[in-house]
Amino acid sequence: MSAESIDVWDYEADVVIAGYGIAGVSAAVEAARAGAEVLVLERAGGWGGAASLAGGFIYMGGGTPLQKALGFEDTPENMKTFMMAALGPGADEAKITEYCEGSVDHYNWLVDCGVPFKESFYGQPGWETPFDDGLMYSGGENSAPFNTIATPAPRGHIPQMADKKVGEKGGGYMLMKPLVETAEKLGVQAQYDMRVQTLVTDATGRVVGVQAKQYGKDVVVRASKGVVLATGSFAYNKDMVEAFAPRLIGRPGAAIEEHDGRSIRMAQALGADLAHMDATEVAFFGDPQMMVRGILVNGRGQRYVNEDTYPGRIGQLTLLQNDNQAYLIIDEDAYEEAKTTPSSTPFFRFQPKWVAETVEELEAEMGLPEGTLQATVEVYNKHAANGQDPVLGKKPEWVKPIGSPIAALDLRNFTAGFTLGGLRTNTASEVLHVSGDPIPGLFAAGRCTAGVCAWGYASGTSLGDGSFFGRRAGVSAAKG
Amino acid sequence: MSAESIDVWDYEADVVIAGYGIAGVSAAVEAARAGAEVLVLERAGGWGGAASLAGGFIYMGGGTPLQKALGFEDTPENMKTFMMAALGPGADEAKITEYCEGSVDHYNWLVDCGVPFKESFYGQPGWETPFDDGLMYSGGENSAPFNTIATPAPRGHIPQMADKKVGEKGGGYMLMKPLVETAEKLGVQAQYDMRVQTLVTDATGRVVGVQAKQYGKDVVVRASKGVVLATGSFAYNKDMVEAFAPRLIGRPGAAIEEHDGRSIRMAQALGADLAHMDATEVAFFGDPQMMVRGILVNGRGQRYVNEDTYPGRIGQLTLLQNDNQAYLIIDEDAYEEAKTTPSSTPFFRFQPKWVAETVEELEAEMGLPEGTLQATVEVYNKHAANGQDPVLGKKPEWVKPIGSPIAALDLRNFTAGFTLGGLRTNTASEVLHVSGDPIPGLFAAGRCTAGVCAWGYASGTSLGDGSFFGRRAGVSAAKG
Repeated sequence: MSAESIDVWDYEADVVIAGYGIAGVSAAVEAARAGAEVLVLERAGGWGGAASLAGGFIYMGGGTPLQKALGFEDTPENMKTFMMAALGPGADEAKITEYCEGSVDHYNWLVDCGVPFKESFYGQPGWETPFDDGLMYSGGENSAPFNTIATPAPRGHIPQMADKKVGEKGGGYMLMKPLVETAEKLGVQAQYDMRVQTLVTDATGRVVGVQAKQYGKDVVVRASKGVVLATGSFAYNKDMVEAFAPRLIGRPGAAIEEHDGRSIRMAQALGADLAHMDATEVAFFGDPQMMVRGILVNGRGQRYVNEDTYPGRIGQLTLLQNDNQAYLIIDEDAYEEAKTTPSSTPFFRFQPKWVAETVEELEAEMGLPEGTLQATVEVYNKHAANGQDPVLGKKPEWVKPIGSPIAALDLRNFTAGFTLGGLRTNTASEVLHVSGDPIPGLFAAGRCTAGVCAWGYASGTSLGDGSFFGRRAGVSAAKG
Repeated sequence: MSAESIDVWDYEADVVIAGYGIAGVSAAVEAARAGAEVLVLERAGGWGGAASLAGGFIYMGGGTPLQKALGFEDTPENMKTFMMAALGPGADEAKITEYCEGSVDHYNWLVDCGVPFKESFYGQPGWETPFDDGLMYSGGENSAPFNTIATPAPRGHIPQMADKKVGEKGGGYMLMKPLVETAEKLGVQAQYDMRVQTLVTDATGRVVGVQAKQYGKDVVVRASKGVVLATGSFAYNKDMVEAFAPRLIGRPGAAIEEHDGRSIRMAQALGADLAHMDATEVAFFGDPQMMVRGILVNGRGQRYVNEDTYPGRIGQLTLLQNDNQAYLIIDEDAYEEAKTTPSSTPFFRFQPKWVAETVEELEAEMGLPEGTLQATVEVYNKHAANGQDPVLGKKPEWVKPIGSPIAALDLRNFTAGFTLGGLRTNTASEVLHVSGDPIPGLFAAGRCTAGVCAWGYASGTSLGDGSFFGRRAGVSAAKG
């Protein structure tokens, strides 16, 4: 849409931000602090986005005060080594380098904005702490193969929801609330029920505003300094998922339906470049407490992942490399032990589908080709007797021969996820044209951009790069 | 680039085609037949593109005269069933439907243009016929799992290079030569050493020309009816491979360095949409005659693919799902038999890296965890004794217990490939804007577009959809 065609602007501000989730609020705070008048346009009836419904993990390290207080050593270099290994292939080294070098500062910024982190570490296998602990492993840092590549350090920082009950969510809300309050104190304005449609450009091609629909009415919003796109992923855009990440068809997860890819589309129309459009976070609904105590096998009865790693890695390897076929093989003692662990989450706890006295019987009941599961268990047990897992490197503490009676949980098609690809931005959060140059006046952050993840994932990297590069977007946009 | 800024055009034609490979020449022939004055701009010093260096497979079926003459039954529906199963997930059903329904006509069109197909079928496992046969399986149609999904029919049609010697290439040249001669007879003009840079648009946004560099000099080419983009894949664009298909970093194959993604970039700058940017063809340099006679195992000593399937499928599963780790386990008798098969290609024939009397010894020499390879061979041999492979469905004719002495070939990192993703086009080969509407005056075909392959691949689908939808691009562009 051309600015010349607009006579009257319905709203005006220096910096206009589309989306009031984690990237939007972080941009808003920094743009306001830089002296800009800021207006946030949010599609929903209130602030929050996917962030406020999330577990709240923020991936930070390099020696944050919380890491230090809890006795964990980490450096920006060590953090970078892990992220480059775990989040690729093709991970954006420039982004990851600045992200790691700025991580301690980012932690302090969040704390300064009022985000609370409880000084307590949760060391159990799991997706999230069922309690209100402030720190945990969230990307397989302490498991094979990454524990031999970089020194393990937990980097999942979780905002505290006081008086949290077991299983209750909350970290994401406790991240968003203080940030929005900070923005409001700085004078940031917001308009809700505002669906952004297209970007407005002037005769030179510079982005100078946004056209949107509010309560069904077309409105135009002028941005005298810059527009920040921050409306989230394309997990709920069926056409885009089919075109770019088809293994996720029919299984969007941990995103909200507002994640319709709109920011990506609007910028693409101006020639913006994309990156890593196939990358996806993949959740796996197996109970981590059970998984570590058993073995996961694919549709051929073969192990394919060390069961003590980050469940999101299990999800990716299951959906993307093993046709979404997974079974958990576990003996009765281990099953009972897992079930009664205080930190086992009832949500993930499933009943065995098949039970037998021997592996041979179990294999037959499951319909696996004769000998396949038997061979897998035999090899596993042989090494487990020595406390070892040379095949996949599960840590000795979880390696124990599988006995009898034995059961199998049917974890086929137990995945869901959201998309990680999007607009290509530089470390100043400028949106890059396919020519490689920034598009004047246009900035973006959060899951509408390709961030620190290119294929792999760690919990906290979305809220992490959304907030980190959201801040950069705010700073850059305020400069104009 | 804006047309208003151009005073004098260096060249003019009704239809301007960028790229003189398979898609370009097919577009040229049809545009010229529709009465358009056609000018082809080619970056290299002559016509040909990747096509003229390729094996020449064109994926056709549904009952072509060649299929019928050689006794194979096929229907468009059966062909579609296979293609939807083998080329996805996310395969473009609209394109595949028209491709299958129009396949017999397309065969006749090629023959009418002078492309020769010898009435002979090559039934051996392999990438290509070492002889001058006209038809072979080229996508795993007659192997698991596709042989139970659709009725197997060979669809790899190969133009005949007369007097071809074993191992000599040639099919692609014999495809391109008659097509270019046909185009020339129709008055199609060509300019060489012409590097296209940007598209020229008029005030309404319609594409009306191309800006290019010829011998280092900037030239502008007017297209009064339309521009067809057909400059091939982005396999040799390092930045794009890193951003979209990073597993292919450092291993481009079967493409030519002219495949720099230029067409994709030029159209993206106008807001063109993309699709399946992560999809890649993956060649695997194992000898198919050896592979069918042994078992392929991954880095954990596990089988992961039926060894009698299309080698390109083996390549994809190896690189994309098994970390590029592959070993071929084969006994001496099978190795000798494969080596002396007349159709074994010396190019793919490698020496064993490890040899042993027992699987246990071999496993130890290879450095695989104790018991892993032994378990795999034991399960395989157990069923092979009955001529069966219930784990992966290799056909009984190739299933035989593995004996002693036994060897392993090191096939790690034995892959290379080219990219399959690109511009989103409709079945009329119009380039689609992210809005979903065609970009006026802009058409595209070949590997700069997302064609019939979304993730899977079959040999012949690139020259196949390049020629099929190249023709559509020519017809559409001539209409203006």
